[in-house]
Amino acid sequence: MPFEGLQYPTKPYSKVNRYDVRASYALRTIHELVNTSPILQVSFTIPDSPFPMMLPMIGQMGSFARPSSDTGDVLELYLHGYVSSRIINLSRKESSDKAGEEATGLPITIGASHVDGLVLSLTPNSHSYNYRSAVLFGHAELVTDNEERLWAMELITNSVVRDRYRHTRVPPNNAEMQSTSILRVKIASGSAKIRSGMPSDEKADLEDEALLDRVWTGVVPVHYTFGEPIPGPYNRLDKPPAYLDEFVRDSNQDAKDIAIEAAIKAMKLKPKANLED
Amino acid sequence: MPFEGLQYPTKPYSKVNRYDVRASYALRTIHELVNTSPILQVSFTIPDSPFPMMLPMIGQMGSFARPSSDTGDVLELYLHGYVSSRIINLSRKESSDKAGEEATGLPITIGASHVDGLVLSLTPNSHSYNYRSAVLFGHAELVTDNEERLWAMELITNSVVRDRYRHTRVPPNNAEMQSTSILRVKIASGSAKIRSGMPSDEKADLEDEALLDRVWTGVVPVHYTFGEPIPGPYNRLDKPPAYLDEFVRDSNQDAKDIAIEAAIKAMKLKPKANLED
Repeated sequence: MPFEGLQYPTKPYSKVNRYDVRASYALRTIHELVNTSPILQVSFTIPDSPFPMMLPMIGQMGSFARPSSDTGDVLELYLHGYVSSRIINLSRKESSDKAGEEATGLPITIGASHVDGLVLSLTPNSHSYNYRSAVLFGHAELVTDNEERLWAMELITNSVVRDRYRHTRVPPNNAEMQSTSILRVKIASGSAKIRSGMPSDEKADLEDEALLDRVWTGVVPVHYTFGEPIPGPYNRLDKPPAYLDEFVRDSNQDAKDIAIEAAIKAMKLKPKANLED
Repeated sequence: MPFEGLQYPTKPYSKVNRYDVRASYALRTIHELVNTSPILQVSFTIPDSPFPMMLPMIGQMGSFARPSSDTGDVLELYLHGYVSSRIINLSRKESSDKAGEEATGLPITIGASHVDGLVLSLTPNSHSYNYRSAVLFGHAELVTDNEERLWAMELITNSVVRDRYRHTRVPPNNAEMQSTSILRVKIASGSAKIRSGMPSDEKADLEDEALLDRVWTGVVPVHYTFGEPIPGPYNRLDKPPAYLDEFVRDSNQDAKDIAIEAAIKAMKLKPKANLED
């Protein structure tokens, strides 16, 4: 096994309990899944409801203290969301309630899932997806420092389109700085689950000649595609700028390659002694 | 406004508190977002952890009692997941603990998010995504009836690839029936948030001629693409069957159309008096 670098500690709530997917606790693997996920699902409990809240948000891993850190380093998650007041008010409250304790902030869970393929086998039960899924657990606090907020806004904007930030009207003005809420999540633990490769069927079915002659088996690759940029009503440029065209082209090629590689590479089985989970 | 049909009741935990997206509580809208999402994020609280659990699962809305129901009707959510023992054991426990009460089962929250486009505006703060996101809240129980379980397995398999189930080796044998765990979620409430259309910038920026001459604004459509099916190691068919080819072709065309329509259609603003959320 190649050296994977730093690993998150395995906690009862973060342990992957399933034998037929590859679990990973490597920071690099988990952080890259989060960074390449266009939307993150953010979950947290609220008072007086048995149901956790769930909000789609945009986010990116980074380190304000060490901006040159790479994805395998210890990083925080910076979140920017469309519905933010509830989570932010809760976060404020938790921080002040627990000031002095080790972990301040609102406990939240963040999910990032990529679908790489439809895995079509001989039987319905063996059908599956190729996917890469990460979950992070941590404590969220509002970023109050203006310099850190600016840095996070650039980080997050450039995660939507590579190198976009400096091509827009920056820096944000006072009103924009006031209205932008950024959460910083200190990560407590995390895990990833990855399924790749071709279908896998039971021996009895693989010996059924008539079945093999009848059922198509294999993988349909799945990936995101960016279409041709569509100019808006007040756009004046006669064509999209090079950085945008290159981003669209590179992203599409990468996404397609990842899905096809996931389909054709050998599935790494790690059977566990205890299969009850 | 066209008649939208049945609506979910607005609960404190399900209310959409954001002014610049279109909120919907229509069963049809929410159910269709869930049914077309290849992966759902399922969240629930567990004892002894401040962090909610989050698991990627496959699911589909349906009614076993009235199989001919359409997506605008009252439906249950049927879930099939790769990591299921924890949620299912919790679900069993909750059901027995609360037997006799009105809502039995494990309280869970389900999120489904579709990304339709990158919305590139003049300033970083006005950047956005076109997206359609749904959340459902409900109580999950294990399906124990074999007939209902079979019905749900067909429903879920055909949600992966249209009409796939009857083209595989069915019915499942006893071992498969035993090893398959299906959860049925009775829905308590739900909501959807939809953002579509072109960028929208502030007046001061729209009057800045140099800025308008410099920054490309518009939408990059985003959608899933299915690639060419890749045959597996024991596939014997010389080409993918017609139902699979047609599913891939139709899905790709629909996905592309949805993303482009979301970009070019007028954004429906519903400003609220109270903007603090």
